[in-house]
Amino acid sequence: MQRTYVCDIEKKAEVNILVKGWVHKIHDLGQISFVHLRDKTGIVQLILDKETSKDLKLEMAIEVCGKTVLNEKAPGGIEVLPDDIKVVGKTFYETLPIEVNAYKQKASLEKQLDNRCLSLKAPKTRAIFKVQEEIANAFRNFLTAQRFSEVRTPKIISSSTEGGSEMFTVDYFGRRAFLTQSPQFYKQMMVGAGFERVFEIGFAYRAELHNTWRHLNEYVSLDVEMGFIEDENELMDLEEALINHIYDHLRKTCARELEIFKVELPEKVEIPRMPLPEAQEILLDKFNLRSPVGNISAEGEVVLSDYIKKTYGSDFVFLTHYPVSKRPMYAMPDPENPELTKSFDLIFKGLEITTGGQRINDYEMLKENIKKFKLNPDDFAFYLDNFKYGMPPHGGFAIGLERITLKILNLDNIREATLITRDMKRLEP
Amino acid sequence: MQRTYVCDIEKKAEVNILVKGWVHKIHDLGQISFVHLRDKTGIVQLILDKETSKDLKLEMAIEVCGKTVLNEKAPGGIEVLPDDIKVVGKTFYETLPIEVNAYKQKASLEKQLDNRCLSLKAPKTRAIFKVQEEIANAFRNFLTAQRFSEVRTPKIISSSTEGGSEMFTVDYFGRRAFLTQSPQFYKQMMVGAGFERVFEIGFAYRAELHNTWRHLNEYVSLDVEMGFIEDENELMDLEEALINHIYDHLRKTCARELEIFKVELPEKVEIPRMPLPEAQEILLDKFNLRSPVGNISAEGEVVLSDYIKKTYGSDFVFLTHYPVSKRPMYAMPDPENPELTKSFDLIFKGLEITTGGQRINDYEMLKENIKKFKLNPDDFAFYLDNFKYGMPPHGGFAIGLERITLKILNLDNIREATLITRDMKRLEP
Repeated sequence: MQRTYVCDIEKKAEVNILVKGWVHKIHDLGQISFVHLRDKTGIVQLILDKETSKDLKLEMAIEVCGKTVLNEKAPGGIEVLPDDIKVVGKTFYETLPIEVNAYKQKASLEKQLDNRCLSLKAPKTRAIFKVQEEIANAFRNFLTAQRFSEVRTPKIISSSTEGGSEMFTVDYFGRRAFLTQSPQFYKQMMVGAGFERVFEIGFAYRAELHNTWRHLNEYVSLDVEMGFIEDENELMDLEEALINHIYDHLRKTCARELEIFKVELPEKVEIPRMPLPEAQEILLDKFNLRSPVGNISAEGEVVLSDYIKKTYGSDFVFLTHYPVSKRPMYAMPDPENPELTKSFDLIFKGLEITTGGQRINDYEMLKENIKKFKLNPDDFAFYLDNFKYGMPPHGGFAIGLERITLKILNLDNIREATLITRDMKRLEP
Repeated sequence: MQRTYVCDIEKKAEVNILVKGWVHKIHDLGQISFVHLRDKTGIVQLILDKETSKDLKLEMAIEVCGKTVLNEKAPGGIEVLPDDIKVVGKTFYETLPIEVNAYKQKASLEKQLDNRCLSLKAPKTRAIFKVQEEIANAFRNFLTAQRFSEVRTPKIISSSTEGGSEMFTVDYFGRRAFLTQSPQFYKQMMVGAGFERVFEIGFAYRAELHNTWRHLNEYVSLDVEMGFIEDENELMDLEEALINHIYDHLRKTCARELEIFKVELPEKVEIPRMPLPEAQEILLDKFNLRSPVGNISAEGEVVLSDYIKKTYGSDFVFLTHYPVSKRPMYAMPDPENPELTKSFDLIFKGLEITTGGQRINDYEMLKENIKKFKLNPDDFAFYLDNFKYGMPPHGGFAIGLERITLKILNLDNIREATLITRDMKRLEP
């Protein structure tokens, strides 16, 4: 018999079906038991006699042939009276280290991460990764429709490509290599190599000595790079439209999951754009909060976001006009004010989720800028090569996938939005 | 004015348009020049006077406002008479290190890889990556429609997860860690953790000391894992249907690219399944070719593929029933013949592109098998944990993305199907 997924069970009695899944809950009522079977798509109730249910344990994998029975009180209004139950995945435990079927997860986050194969089974945790998958799909669909190409660029790089600090080192056949912090150079290369518009959904690595609620050492970066642009505003327009598309897509594909997290996504997102100096001034004048040179602090991001929400009704704000000294050497200076760059950050509910901007596309200018940054152009030979053969004006941005998931679902810790966490302490599972 | 992509130019005269792209070719005819502008989507001809064309160099990035002119002799039957040409990406070279517009690329593959930002511009090279992108899209769409979830699992792993040989080492905050050879353990974990059916499109790393036409040290693995299966035949059914879907999808999305490579994809793929011993026997009896124990040689793969093509008309063949001794410790033994496993390889035009099979899903059996392989179960504690909480029967397979691209397009070297190559000698660009 063909398997029926729980979400596809018709509300119709006396239908013979085969369902497969895990024993989610056992309600022992004496002569009979209600057993909840959980599959990937939902939960359905089985009615079992004492004899059958006594051999079942929570989280056993089972296959059940049976007949449907209408019952308004059962989840989904339907239950299954089994003819046959086959245990296809046994259990080997005394007590479950963490509960899968609790309304609220009582185990600490650390314990959930230690027992990831169990904690991921909990419907609420599962919902996070359904939403995350659809964020990535929305990102891809939106960009593909606008002639962006998906690329996959190397994660092992030679020493000379990026800054060098905070990078993991790899032994590459005896050579010292690194795990990439971002596909920045490669996505620019692809723009110049005729792809024009590219995106990448891939891992990025930061060997940062942070262990906070918002830092990961291995994370998924949603990267965008676009050629033949006018200026950085075109990039912010694109990202604003992208955020709107992600919200639309989530409303369509993740209604159930958003409900679990009691999240209502606004119909239309309009994102204010504010020069960094103005943001710093607001923080100082209105909140007596001093900002570091050329940036705002993590605390400032939270306070500013609150202010923006109250003033403009937006969960997002673009900060623009970051100074040259605080951006990478490839950031395009503002011709009207060469101390500032055509770059931006996107702050979402108090957390930076994006850095972006227009890049320098002229070979000579880039070479000069590398020198101004007290770096050696020879170390960037492979990168500079890309600028010799007609590099159009271009720019891009990157969104941290775990960070945007965290903020959309109002989670507390980025590890909750990470399937398998890699942080300073965690290399397993 | 809104930009028009070359492929969207209507075959209609006197239309004002803005096109953007690179100077692909310059035909100097004395008083006038024909200049080919290449964008991401195609090539269009510009008609220029002497004065204007003299400042143009091959591969400059330009933006052109002009009027369309009908001309049957021009590519696409239409050309553009420019009012204004703006150079937005200058060039900095004496002579191009490799030709972009040649009908046949004359530069060696090594030189193409050294000058990747240029070699990728050539339309024929570009076509490879369009096809590759669509193979990955077809893989995703096919599986998503069958309720598979896309996952992204860590690429930095602790020492204890896999074999340990042929792995790149990473310094992880002073701990010795590794780059993963495959997401095998994690995809199995996700099946058990309630995702049931998962796929991953991600990098895998092999520190193999090979430098051949078919080996890469960083490659993209299309991984599949599926729970609640009957046996390994269900996996082969799935892969066969997947291959058919990929072909259908490529016919729809890459007609132009397939034509460039003179590739005609068969309407229907039916893949013979042959036990390994039978294949070995054929090689010995018919071709006097001796096979290594429990496998066939690279030469044998080529000879067998030829034989299969002649005998069954198929470019593909599944080899089944590999012996326990030649498969990993998690391969499910065949209950009817415990020296053999329920695993398979897929050979495509003489090249192995897939290894797959049913896995052991019983905790005790897996632990025993680890011991039989003279390994220590304690080293696999995190992996074994997944089998304590109801692991259903499951299995999967993986396809090398570059390998399937190579074979579909009949390329000679896997590096041609790799955007940026990482091999023993190549860590740049």
